[in-house]
Amino acid sequence: MARAGEEALIARYFAPLSGPGAEGLRDDAASLTPSPGHDLVLTADAVVAGVHYFPDDPPGSIAVKALGVNLSDLAAKGAVPRGFLLTLALPDDWTEAWLSAFAEGLGASSLEHGCPLLGGDTVRSGGPALIGVTAFGELPAGTIVRRQAARAGDRLCVSGTIGDAALGLALRLAPDEALDPAHREALRDRYLHPRPRLALAPVLRAHARAAMDISDGLVGDLTKMLSGTGLTARIEAARVPLSPAARAAIARDPARLATALTGGDDYEILCAVPPEALPAFLAEAARVGVPAAEVGIVEAGAAPPRVLDVAGTAMAFAAGSFSHF
Amino acid sequence: MARAGEEALIARYFAPLSGPGAEGLRDDAASLTPSPGHDLVLTADAVVAGVHYFPDDPPGSIAVKALGVNLSDLAAKGAVPRGFLLTLALPDDWTEAWLSAFAEGLGASSLEHGCPLLGGDTVRSGGPALIGVTAFGELPAGTIVRRQAARAGDRLCVSGTIGDAALGLALRLAPDEALDPAHREALRDRYLHPRPRLALAPVLRAHARAAMDISDGLVGDLTKMLSGTGLTARIEAARVPLSPAARAAIARDPARLATALTGGDDYEILCAVPPEALPAFLAEAARVGVPAAEVGIVEAGAAPPRVLDVAGTAMAFAAGSFSHF
Repeated sequence: MARAGEEALIARYFAPLSGPGAEGLRDDAASLTPSPGHDLVLTADAVVAGVHYFPDDPPGSIAVKALGVNLSDLAAKGAVPRGFLLTLALPDDWTEAWLSAFAEGLGASSLEHGCPLLGGDTVRSGGPALIGVTAFGELPAGTIVRRQAARAGDRLCVSGTIGDAALGLALRLAPDEALDPAHREALRDRYLHPRPRLALAPVLRAHARAAMDISDGLVGDLTKMLSGTGLTARIEAARVPLSPAARAAIARDPARLATALTGGDDYEILCAVPPEALPAFLAEAARVGVPAAEVGIVEAGAAPPRVLDVAGTAMAFAAGSFSHF
Repeated sequence: MARAGEEALIARYFAPLSGPGAEGLRDDAASLTPSPGHDLVLTADAVVAGVHYFPDDPPGSIAVKALGVNLSDLAAKGAVPRGFLLTLALPDDWTEAWLSAFAEGLGASSLEHGCPLLGGDTVRSGGPALIGVTAFGELPAGTIVRRQAARAGDRLCVSGTIGDAALGLALRLAPDEALDPAHREALRDRYLHPRPRLALAPVLRAHARAAMDISDGLVGDLTKMLSGTGLTARIEAARVPLSPAARAAIARDPARLATALTGGDDYEILCAVPPEALPAFLAEAARVGVPAAEVGIVEAGAAPPRVLDVAGTAMAFAAGSFSHF
């Protein structure tokens, strides 16, 4: 099948995903009217073939990841999605089949999260595919939850389970046939399909003092949360929530615990909650269907955060933070 | 010199460019508070090395182009810039010297246009450099100037001069040493450095019925403006404003007129103005320092727009529209 030119490609695959203000993608810009009394929250993250995903991942999964990693940032800030722009840089050998499946996955994810496509750009990459998303959310004016606003004594909490995606990636690079196939599939799925914790956004606004999403590993991202603030933290490894699949993988190889704690792509939320707000935070998180757990505490001091094992000894990690760069 | 990691790179080169709401680029998202009663205008355009610019172009010029092509879209919609996000995908052989010069050019352009950096992402491209910008502007609610809103009888106007950048590109690909060096430099400069017509934004809001920026050539973009609307147009080539440098280049080779009318990268404004508003539009454009000229008229009919030569004959073009894709 002959490949479509840029205009035809947009009309065929992306115009059906467009929302109000996008003019059916027939203009050079979109308009967005924020709700009265609200701030916009803006975030941009790109994923690159061979860097952030495997070039032969299902195109729909790549789309889910490209949008999901951005929605995860909005969730961590306490924002409700309003829309996104897509910068799609295609390799010279792109196919209509790939693009069709990509657009289908993107549309499904966009619909699921109430985040319509508002515009974007399509270019030749001259190399691997790059999918850049800019996502827009909104929240009541002045209520954005910042990354570096924790105080000593705040309790550190995480949503969901930690390390699944990193273990999923590790098992793709070094398969472990002895692990239960259902567990292998669960971990693989977490690597492929981030689950932005948007349901937690209002709970974070109400109760968290600081928050970020965990994209580069719990240990590394906690370090970023406190870097330069004069604060440190202590986490108890035994309190970090692990999925049954992660537990099974770690049981077969205890070194995988470090992978779980430092590997990337969790897209869970890390937040600092004042102690007096902790019960309400945990209860409301459960009520919106996002399990959350207390894992540690913020303390005064400039040392790097520590992760303590069951004996109370600080664990040492070869790499503190996963980096896609 | 050892190259900085992502966090250090952001702190060193990009944090100094950041504006209010960006938290010094130490958060995953920025906040933007639109002015009361205003809509946001959103646009995303990326430039790729070897596709949209020459890999050995001065890094500062590449930055000016990456931001400028987006600000040009805001100008065409009638918006005032509020900020931008940067997605920087770097090739494996990036250098600190390149990045430093790029950031310097970006900072100067950002300052010139009152458009601070609000955030972004830095990734490995695995191929050529890609610079993706998402720019945000604002305008009084409901006043966005759309691309496809022209009506029969509207006068077509363009800002500035047409074809300089396309001729600058053509002369880079096929140098013409007989052309006056000052003219060659003027055309080269127009190719390297788009001049977003932001001063024209309020004049467009006040008087234009439809507008777009000319990025893919006057003829092709006019076709896009009218595509599917049941309208066509007639332009008189002799009324299309040309710079002294473009006139000199065309005098040496009349075939270059087609390049000027169909080539890309003008980043001037094409707009449709109701006849009764034309005098005020032209007068106010002159008052804000952006020359504008009437070049044709919108007419009923579904045929492609025609460009008439001095004899009144429709010109034929090998390629109606320049495409970067």
